[in-house]
Amino acid sequence: MTNPTAAMLVIGDEILSGRTRDSNAHHLAKALTERGIELCEIRVVSDKPDAITGAARDLSGRYTHLFTSGGIGPTHDDITADCIAAVFDTPIGVRDDARAILQAHYAARDAELNEARLRMARIPDGAELIDNPISSAPGFSLRNIHVMAGVPQIFEAMLAGLLPRLAGGAPVLSRTLRVSRGEGDIAAPLAALAAEFPDLSVGSYPSWTGTGHQVAIVLRGTDGTLLEQAVARLRQDFPEAAE
Amino acid sequence: MTNPTAAMLVIGDEILSGRTRDSNAHHLAKALTERGIELCEIRVVSDKPDAITGAARDLSGRYTHLFTSGGIGPTHDDITADCIAAVFDTPIGVRDDARAILQAHYAARDAELNEARLRMARIPDGAELIDNPISSAPGFSLRNIHVMAGVPQIFEAMLAGLLPRLAGGAPVLSRTLRVSRGEGDIAAPLAALAAEFPDLSVGSYPSWTGTGHQVAIVLRGTDGTLLEQAVARLRQDFPEAAE
Repeated sequence: MTNPTAAMLVIGDEILSGRTRDSNAHHLAKALTERGIELCEIRVVSDKPDAITGAARDLSGRYTHLFTSGGIGPTHDDITADCIAAVFDTPIGVRDDARAILQAHYAARDAELNEARLRMARIPDGAELIDNPISSAPGFSLRNIHVMAGVPQIFEAMLAGLLPRLAGGAPVLSRTLRVSRGEGDIAAPLAALAAEFPDLSVGSYPSWTGTGHQVAIVLRGTDGTLLEQAVARLRQDFPEAAE
Repeated sequence: MTNPTAAMLVIGDEILSGRTRDSNAHHLAKALTERGIELCEIRVVSDKPDAITGAARDLSGRYTHLFTSGGIGPTHDDITADCIAAVFDTPIGVRDDARAILQAHYAARDAELNEARLRMARIPDGAELIDNPISSAPGFSLRNIHVMAGVPQIFEAMLAGLLPRLAGGAPVLSRTLRVSRGEGDIAAPLAALAAEFPDLSVGSYPSWTGTGHQVAIVLRGTDGTLLEQAVARLRQDFPEAAE
C-alpha cells in the first residue's frame, strides 16, 4: 500500500491504571481507514515528559502523521504541548490568537481567564491551530504531529475539523465472511488464498460464542475487483459462509 | 514507586483498522494495578514480523514484564511465537508437552490435529507454558515475555493462571473525588497539592456532561496514611466534592 501512514499516541496515566478505557484510538482507527490513511501503531504512555517526548519523536519520524490525545488542559499534569515543542526544539509561549479564543469563550461565560487557563494558549511557534468547537481551547498541528484533547467528545470534534486538511489515500475496502468452524479447519485454504492474492490482506479473527467457534474472515485492499475475485474464491472454499 | 513495571503489546491488524476494539489492555491494566505491578506502556502493532519483533525487543528490555495478546492461533497470520523466539535468538519447534495437550483436546472432540493446529504447539526452547482452560492451545512465558491469546475470554483465563506466578508489589491505592467545576478553577490548588505530596500521583480527569464540566480528581499511591492526609486536604479546598 502506498497510502499515507499514521500512528496514535494516547497520553494518560488513567488509561494505564485501568481507571479509564480509551476510546479515542478506536475512533481514530475507523476515521483514518475511511480516509485511506493507514494506522500502523498505537501507543499509550504515562504523563511523564520523557515518556511523551521519546514516543512522539520516534513515531513522528516513522510515519506520515502522528495524532496525540490527552494532556492539553489547564492542570499541572497537562504537559503535552511543551513535550511536543521539545521534540522539534521549537519555542513555545502564549500565542495571541489562542489567547483571543479563550478570552472570548470565558468572557461569554462570566468566567475568569486565570493563569491556569491561560496555559491552554501555549502554542509552539509555527503550529497551526485545531479548532475546538466544544470548549474552545484549541489543539494544534506542529509539522506532522497533531495534538488533540483527551475528552472523547472534544477529540472527535477536533478530528472532524482536522481530517479534511490532510491528504487521504485510496479508501481501504473490506469484506467479511463468517464461518462456524475452528480456525484450524480453515487455515490451509486461507493460507493458499493469502498466497494467491498478495495485494490483499487476509485476516482471520476467531471468537468463542460459548457453544462453539466462529471465525470472521476479513479481506482488505484498495482494489475492488481483486477483492471480489478473492470473495468468489472464498465462497468456493466455504459455501456455507455468511456475509 | 519501586514496584515491578510492565508493558503490554497488542498484536493485530483488526485493532488498527478499527474493525475490533481491543479490551485486553484495559483488563490487564486493572489486574496489574490490583497486583502492584505498574503498567507503563501499551502498544498496538500490526501482524508484520518486524513490527512485532521490534516492539517486543524494545519493551522487554525496558520493563520487568512484557505481556502480549494475539497472533498465536493456527492460521498464516499467527506469527507471534516465532517473532518472540527471534527476539532472544531462541530455537523454536513443536514441543512434546504442548502437542500432548492439543492431542488430548482434539481427540476428545473427534477433531483432527492437523498441520495448522500443530503450529500451536510450536514453543520456544526453555519457555514455560501458560495454561489455556478454554481451548487448550497454550500460551508461554519466555524470559520476561508472556505470550497470550487475543480472544478476550482466553486472554483473561490465561492471565488468571499466570499472575499468581509473578512477584507483585505494594498494591496501588486510589481515592477519587468529583467536583462540578472546570479544570481551570481547580488547577492552582491541585498543583499545590501535587507539590506537597510528591509520593502520590495527583490526576485530574475532566468530562463533559453536555450541560457542564465535571472533574474527577484521582489520588494514587501505595501509602494509605499519606493518601488519607491528601484527601483531607482536598476536602478543605473543595468542601463540595463528592466521593
